[in-house]
Amino acid sequence: MLTYADRARLAVVLVGARNPSNIGAAARAMHDFGFTDLRIVNDYAAPFEAAQLEAKSAVASAHVMHAARRFSTVAEAIADCTLVAATTAVGDRELRTPVQTLQQAAPEVVGSLSSTGARVALLFGSEKTGLTREQLSHSSLLLTIPMFSPRAAEDSAATHEQGATAAATPRHLSMNLGQAVAVCLYELTRDGFAGAKELPVRNEPPATAADRERLTQLLLDALHATGYSRRFPANATEAQVRQLAQQMGASHREAMTWMGVLRQILWRERGEPGQ
Amino acid sequence: MLTYADRARLAVVLVGARNPSNIGAAARAMHDFGFTDLRIVNDYAAPFEAAQLEAKSAVASAHVMHAARRFSTVAEAIADCTLVAATTAVGDRELRTPVQTLQQAAPEVVGSLSSTGARVALLFGSEKTGLTREQLSHSSLLLTIPMFSPRAAEDSAATHEQGATAAATPRHLSMNLGQAVAVCLYELTRDGFAGAKELPVRNEPPATAADRERLTQLLLDALHATGYSRRFPANATEAQVRQLAQQMGASHREAMTWMGVLRQILWRERGEPGQ
Repeated sequence: MLTYADRARLAVVLVGARNPSNIGAAARAMHDFGFTDLRIVNDYAAPFEAAQLEAKSAVASAHVMHAARRFSTVAEAIADCTLVAATTAVGDRELRTPVQTLQQAAPEVVGSLSSTGARVALLFGSEKTGLTREQLSHSSLLLTIPMFSPRAAEDSAATHEQGATAAATPRHLSMNLGQAVAVCLYELTRDGFAGAKELPVRNEPPATAADRERLTQLLLDALHATGYSRRFPANATEAQVRQLAQQMGASHREAMTWMGVLRQILWRERGEPGQ
Repeated sequence: MLTYADRARLAVVLVGARNPSNIGAAARAMHDFGFTDLRIVNDYAAPFEAAQLEAKSAVASAHVMHAARRFSTVAEAIADCTLVAATTAVGDRELRTPVQTLQQAAPEVVGSLSSTGARVALLFGSEKTGLTREQLSHSSLLLTIPMFSPRAAEDSAATHEQGATAAATPRHLSMNLGQAVAVCLYELTRDGFAGAKELPVRNEPPATAADRERLTQLLLDALHATGYSRRFPANATEAQVRQLAQQMGASHREAMTWMGVLRQILWRERGEPGQ
């Protein structure tokens, strides 16, 4: 699991982002997954300044935008980082470094952050152009979020008719910037949260086998008393009814509710007042 | 890997989304990961219509918005689905169903989509309010995207000084809608079919959400007719009863059996002969 200190050593670097809303969306995703170091590479300050202004009304991610820094070049932005990973949509740009899926690349990023104490940069290009070859050349790790190509699906469907496996072939279009940042940071923190004990566990005791058996008997009685067993004997065998009772309430409380319902039906059938 | 046909059977259901940009962002994430069935639950048509209008300029996801449908209630939107999974930010709302992480819940969703041919609904609430307890009661699977709690990190840092492990404690704030949809769909497509085969294959058609709703209404009627609702009103609210009905039979056949049982109770209460 990445500690807070580990996360603080991941720099999310947005290169050439022009739309302040996209910068804000990236900050929000960082906030949600516990990252804080946002760096913007842009020749001119306007988008960055606008994003900072907008962030004042965005309580959640304001601290990320407030601490964000702007650089003029990729080289300056990543100078203190030991591992530089870049995201790419894998167009037909001639890539020199093999591209890994986000899932394949994540362990190296997480490993660097958690074991060596080093700073890691994660580069995102602009939505429109992605990262140029020059910008990509700063990175030693290229990763891509596998996306779905409708064209590949159609080709595939045409060849194999229905139900063909659609391939996740490379596409030119990139994802929405905020969504791409969110997906990457989710992947990096995904295994840290696995089975996290902090998740609210149902705080109710589950139904016991004894509860199930009482339910089974009460349900059998109710089916008999209402005449259901006579009409549909095949549905009212003890085994069938026990099977139904297996699902009557996951918790002891719910099972008790069901018992109350069934007792009420029995009281009515026996001609006693509804109480 | 989920086939194109598998993906077509996942319905992304946005409940109460008011911001057309959020609806558009969700459509774009669906497009990126190869999903097509978008459903909007909203009393009024304006946000949906605005999103459709905006989508005309968004080449990538226009086909998703074009095919999107609006419903007035959650029940209508999910009627044809056999598995209903709902996302929740895990606030301090009292949840009766255990919440799984997205990662934990994904195999069941993927397994349903790939092995039984069933339709699956994935519910998202509005950013502001999330899903209400009534809306959550339609689902049998609750999942959450583990997010990072700055407060827990601060507490942790205060206690252990630097480098403390920050706990992923539940938070109230929800993610940006488009980012949440992107992260969920990424997780569902991340492993393809991996782990899907280990899920028990059901050889019976599962109960649909429409079955569940009929059961809920019949059970409400039965509780009323027998006088149970009067005696235990706290156990007989529509949301409570719907939650009970979530567990009434795993298969369509078992659900039909329960309907028969409840109808029999109602016939008796209405003074008709047991037939």
